[in-house]
Amino acid sequence: MKCKTTIYAVVFFSFCIYGFIVVPQTKNNSILKISNETQDCISCHESVTPGIVSDWRTSLHSKNTFELAEQKPALEKLVSSSNVADNLKNVVVGCYECHSLNAIKHKDNFDHFGYKINVIVTPKDCSTCHSQEYNEYSNSKKANALDNLRKNFLYHTLVNNTIGTKDYKHGKIITLEASSFSKNESCYACHGTEVKVIGTIKVKTDLGDIEEPKLTNWPNQGVGRINPDSSKGSCTSCHPRHSFSIAVARNPNTCEQCHLKPDVPAYNIYIESKHGNIFESKKESWNWDNVPWKLGKNFTAPTCSVCHNSLITSPAGDVIVQRTHDFGSRLWVRIFGAIYSYPQTKDGRTYLIKNKDGLPLATTFTDIPASDFLIDAKFQNQRKETMEHLCSSCHSTDWIKSYFEKMDTTLAEADKMVAVSTKIMLNVWGKKLADKSNPFDELIEQKWVQQWLFYANSLRYSAAMSGPDYAAFENGWWQLTKNLNEMLLIAHQLENGK
Amino acid sequence: MKCKTTIYAVVFFSFCIYGFIVVPQTKNNSILKISNETQDCISCHESVTPGIVSDWRTSLHSKNTFELAEQKPALEKLVSSSNVADNLKNVVVGCYECHSLNAIKHKDNFDHFGYKINVIVTPKDCSTCHSQEYNEYSNSKKANALDNLRKNFLYHTLVNNTIGTKDYKHGKIITLEASSFSKNESCYACHGTEVKVIGTIKVKTDLGDIEEPKLTNWPNQGVGRINPDSSKGSCTSCHPRHSFSIAVARNPNTCEQCHLKPDVPAYNIYIESKHGNIFESKKESWNWDNVPWKLGKNFTAPTCSVCHNSLITSPAGDVIVQRTHDFGSRLWVRIFGAIYSYPQTKDGRTYLIKNKDGLPLATTFTDIPASDFLIDAKFQNQRKETMEHLCSSCHSTDWIKSYFEKMDTTLAEADKMVAVSTKIMLNVWGKKLADKSNPFDELIEQKWVQQWLFYANSLRYSAAMSGPDYAAFENGWWQLTKNLNEMLLIAHQLENGK
Amino acid sequence: MKCKTTIYAVVFFSFCIYGFIVVPQTKNNSILKISNETQDCISCHESVTPGIVSDWRTSLHSKNTFELAEQKPALEKLVSSSNVADNLKNVVVGCYECHSLNAIKHKDNFDHFGYKINVIVTPKDCSTCHSQEYNEYSNSKKANALDNLRKNFLYHTLVNNTIGTKDYKHGKIITLEASSFSKNESCYACHGTEVKVIGTIKVKTDLGDIEEPKLTNWPNQGVGRINPDSSKGSCTSCHPRHSFSIAVARNPNTCEQCHLKPDVPAYNIYIESKHGNIFESKKESWNWDNVPWKLGKNFTAPTCSVCHNSLITSPAGDVIVQRTHDFGSRLWVRIFGAIYSYPQTKDGRTYLIKNKDGLPLATTFTDIPASDFLIDAKFQNQRKETMEHLCSSCHSTDWIKSYFEKMDTTLAEADKMVAVSTKIMLNVWGKKLADKSNPFDELIEQKWVQQWLFYANSLRYSAAMSGPDYAAFENGWWQLTKNLNEMLLIAHQLENGK
Repeated sequence: MKCKTTIYAVVFFSFCIYGFIVVPQTKNNSILKISNETQDCISCHESVTPGIVSDWRTSLHSKNTFELAEQKPALEKLVSSSNVADNLKNVVVGCYECHSLNAIKHKDNFDHFGYKINVIVTPKDCSTCHSQEYNEYSNSKKANALDNLRKNFLYHTLVNNTIGTKDYKHGKIITLEASSFSKNESCYACHGTEVKVIGTIKVKTDLGDIEEPKLTNWPNQGVGRINPDSSKGSCTSCHPRHSFSIAVARNPNTCEQCHLKPDVPAYNIYIESKHGNIFESKKESWNWDNVPWKLGKNFTAPTCSVCHNSLITSPAGDVIVQRTHDFGSRLWVRIFGAIYSYPQTKDGRTYLIKNKDGLPLATTFTDIPASDFLIDAKFQNQRKETMEHLCSSCHSTDWIKSYFEKMDTTLAEADKMVAVSTKIMLNVWGKKLADKSNPFDELIEQKWVQQWLFYANSLRYSAAMSGPDYAAFENGWWQLTKNLNEMLLIAHQLENGK
Repeated sequence: MKCKTTIYAVVFFSFCIYGFIVVPQTKNNSILKISNETQDCISCHESVTPGIVSDWRTSLHSKNTFELAEQKPALEKLVSSSNVADNLKNVVVGCYECHSLNAIKHKDNFDHFGYKINVIVTPKDCSTCHSQEYNEYSNSKKANALDNLRKNFLYHTLVNNTIGTKDYKHGKIITLEASSFSKNESCYACHGTEVKVIGTIKVKTDLGDIEEPKLTNWPNQGVGRINPDSSKGSCTSCHPRHSFSIAVARNPNTCEQCHLKPDVPAYNIYIESKHGNIFESKKESWNWDNVPWKLGKNFTAPTCSVCHNSLITSPAGDVIVQRTHDFGSRLWVRIFGAIYSYPQTKDGRTYLIKNKDGLPLATTFTDIPASDFLIDAKFQNQRKETMEHLCSSCHSTDWIKSYFEKMDTTLAEADKMVAVSTKIMLNVWGKKLADKSNPFDELIEQKWVQQWLFYANSLRYSAAMSGPDYAAFENGWWQLTKNLNEMLLIAHQLENGK
Repeated sequence: MKCKTTIYAVVFFSFCIYGFIVVPQTKNNSILKISNETQDCISCHESVTPGIVSDWRTSLHSKNTFELAEQKPALEKLVSSSNVADNLKNVVVGCYECHSLNAIKHKDNFDHFGYKINVIVTPKDCSTCHSQEYNEYSNSKKANALDNLRKNFLYHTLVNNTIGTKDYKHGKIITLEASSFSKNESCYACHGTEVKVIGTIKVKTDLGDIEEPKLTNWPNQGVGRINPDSSKGSCTSCHPRHSFSIAVARNPNTCEQCHLKPDVPAYNIYIESKHGNIFESKKESWNWDNVPWKLGKNFTAPTCSVCHNSLITSPAGDVIVQRTHDFGSRLWVRIFGAIYSYPQTKDGRTYLIKNKDGLPLATTFTDIPASDFLIDAKFQNQRKETMEHLCSSCHSTDWIKSYFEKMDTTLAEADKMVAVSTKIMLNVWGKKLADKSNPFDELIEQKWVQQWLFYANSLRYSAAMSGPDYAAFENGWWQLTKNLNEMLLIAHQLENGK
């Protein structure tokens, strides 16, 4: 640690003499300016947190100013705001440019060696240059992922049953309230936490003690995080700091972190598909950074982002689909069954849904859709056509039509398998063999949850992206069938035990 | 969509003026000819399906003529037919060269803007240039994968029980007939479907309506697909269209699509093995395209195709093993237990097997082999020696001998674990506690299926390729042991329930 | 095979004439000497085992002498011994240099065409040049992995119950003694076997018969292998022969072979974490070979080896953490629960532990730690600070503190979930509803094992490395909760069956 102190001192004083440390250059060798404030940050953090500074140096942020980025041709442009404050225009996007924005709204702002710094850079801050992305994102299901979980009493019950610690008393298992830590380390890691400032803490550094904001539910990078400036989301979920790479965001491994088996086996099924096979075999030869992303030239098979959100053009540069940061907006049907599949919701805040039984679910337990909250057939068709247009870059019309016909059938069959499982439950609940007021805590109920959350979802995602082996034996048909037998066995035992 | 129409028109008329669009070149800068017909295809499809055209441009097909390919030194040669029709000799292998072959046999042939085009290019079509590969493949288990499933009544029952939707009536679960869509999206996705022409459909295009053949069970790329020209197989399963890359076919991820846990955990175990570890760590530095594939030079650890079908030479170019497209032909024992391991079958049509109990399985439920249908000891030894010869490129003789001795023991132990599970079932069936006429639909039977299809198979594949952790806790010994206890518990409950 | 004989003869006689075959060169074009003995090896093995020779040629061993390696700057140095025998100093590290060392101690030494050759190169042999690595390793848990399993009677019982074949007699399941082959192909594949010489075997070669040592429990590359020279370990586990690559050892896929779900889901959780996501997205651009490994320059996210054993420096070359081959030595808590988490052990030989109940476990079944065998709070803090120092390269102090606070809570909650499961078992055992003398062979016991070995471990590893989805639904909280219900159901059935 002594060594570090020395480096500190040397770097700090070097800075005082030279006044700047880093001068990145653009390709045409013109020198880009780093703001004095950011130079000050770097002068210390180069040795205190060298990984962050190194990572930032690999970013486009370190090699661009807003003015340069703004001059790019429309399809190559990565900024969407029409203007920014003068002090941001001609300097590279450095530490201070991001960590000082909208300070007044940031409850996590604190004095850091004379600078007013926000601990967390939020989507609202990013919107300074990327306003369109922010706007699209803000109304999405992702941005509302935290409330969609905690404000839906059924989902909340499922979460608490699952991750609350248990006790065993008088021959019974009792579920305790889940801790905020457990939530942040499981469900809410992806859905996001509410990060609040609850005081300050003193942190020892080689330059003396610092007083920093003490944050709750932190660290967290969930997509629906509620930030200390009240904004929603976390851009770093997919564009991890401090390289903020578009290549990383386009990589299916990034989506994998949350869209993973057994409940959302999107990644697993993609990788098993022919598309995933081509990705795995050829990814090293692809250009992961080019904007716009040219089909057949920069990449040769779809990835998650190709179908769901990237700006895609033909090899010649003609737009096939526009970029969107509302990730469900190209989809017509929601295949994450809860408990059946249904048309996409009109609003990203799914906790607002109320079905005919008064439950916050898009369908009743007997599969009656809450149509008022779901997009209509016309809108569904429009979205399907957008997707088919993208598919048609590599597939013929009859191929595509047959593919989606097959998918529709499988969705219906998956829903039917859920319906028959639910029929058993309705019988069990009806006879008071299980307590419906909490539908997730008894063994037979948990087996029922697996039917729709794990196994039927596997069929559905497989239908959408083609992972036949996954749907057959890995976590789909075989388990749906066998687990149905297990549900029936327990139902009989409950009945006979009466 | 308007934009697309405009492009169409421009491209179409450009074509009329210039008469050709694409002129690939060989390395020595001589210009290769594209047939007029293929130029015509490209002129439209460049904008209609740009992904296909781009992908094809990356293929060897776009950069070779039969005549050039035929002149290669024997070990580098990728065509095996001695001759082709004159019109195919001196043009690159383009759209029309493949999609117009053997039109008379193709029930999927249709008029496409004046050309007679087959929707599906079949192995028979590919055999025009690749006759040896076609011949080897045609008698393999892979080519017969569809019939091996649907013509084996036991397997057919297993398929239907698994993927047929269920109903729940009068306290019982009823299995409905599986739909053709479900089949195509699970078991038959890998095994292949029978693609038949059942009429025509009208498809809207920007150049007007087209009438195309309506195909059943389509799309499908299963290895045993029965095509509209009656041929069997789908080369695109492993050489995905339209780059038809040998590099992709050599990549274990390609095999992964079907040879995956829990039933065929070949890929999972390979990746966990030291061979897979070296592959994962060094694959980027390998030459995945070179023909022949030179051990120690182009690659430094076995992959699926190294052991099972590629032409492999020493770094100096001496042949170690010849190429084969009969993928089981280097193997002596079949480790995909159904329900035990046994010598490889003589014929690729395994549905022809009849064992002593009259069942279409290579062994009886008490492990008596149907020897008439299986290769004899001498033939087994020959194949084992071929494999040992390949192993000896990197391993010493005593290493190899000990390795296979270990494998033989594990196969015997896996079979013993299946035998003891089956002993419980024979007792249960004998006492009429379960109905043997359908041996796959009751809970205890499903647990028995898991013993041989999932867990014993894990031991077997692990023994062959070394995935110890997989065989221990992931899906092998632990599950075999625990599931045996569960079978016994259910057997007792059935007995006591009587 | 005839072809091979001819090559043999040609190569052999070529060797007699020229006296050498291979002359690798260093970067500065000076010629490095290969010893005569190694040249002799290569002259045959170039054609007998071409893969080995090719692989060796890619190694640093083939391009370095001890003298050259010894002159490197301290941080770049890969040899740690201060001196070696004269005959090893100025020749590259070839076949003979390694396979002839310490012959007198090697019971696997044999006469091989006039040379005295050891079949196995052991860590003791590697210590000739890499003494520090050997010393660090020898006292680690890894080096003692075999004894830690077989000399711990509880673990031994678990092993035998799991991988012993079973029989079914008089309505009961009987566990037979596990074979040495099964052990070597499952648990002991990772933990290591004891390789003994038990005679000789005759091996046919093209140059005539050879008599070689016959080895038991071979092949094996487990980390705790006991070698024929009595040394412990197998460097090739992570540095696979014969390229001995540091890049491979640094690759998480190497660790994956043993540190895999369901019992040790370290790899699975890493890959799902943001660190793993960056690794997967950027690994191709990293420099995997550089020594020292420069954070932010050679790599941009932690891998297994970054945190656990590599020498890491800042981009400027300042040491952040020193290299160690005692892989647990940076860790303060052991999260591989058996059955709870606990402070790291003082000694690598965990079989020496005896807790208050007299069991060879670091805690009792009611979570009382065997503190005498565990490192104290001060030592724990020192280690934690080392790790925090490494984290601080990319994360701020408050981030790190909050992260570890979250981890501590999850470890406590995982332990609590194990405690409540064990409470059920203590009740069951107390009432003689299950036989505690073997706590692993009855169904309810196996479900209890899954609680701590699979599911609680998932929570723990997830807490350490952040794999929230894995801990939630894949193999953690959901399973812990549901399996607890299943344990309770069986407990009730056992009670009612009485």
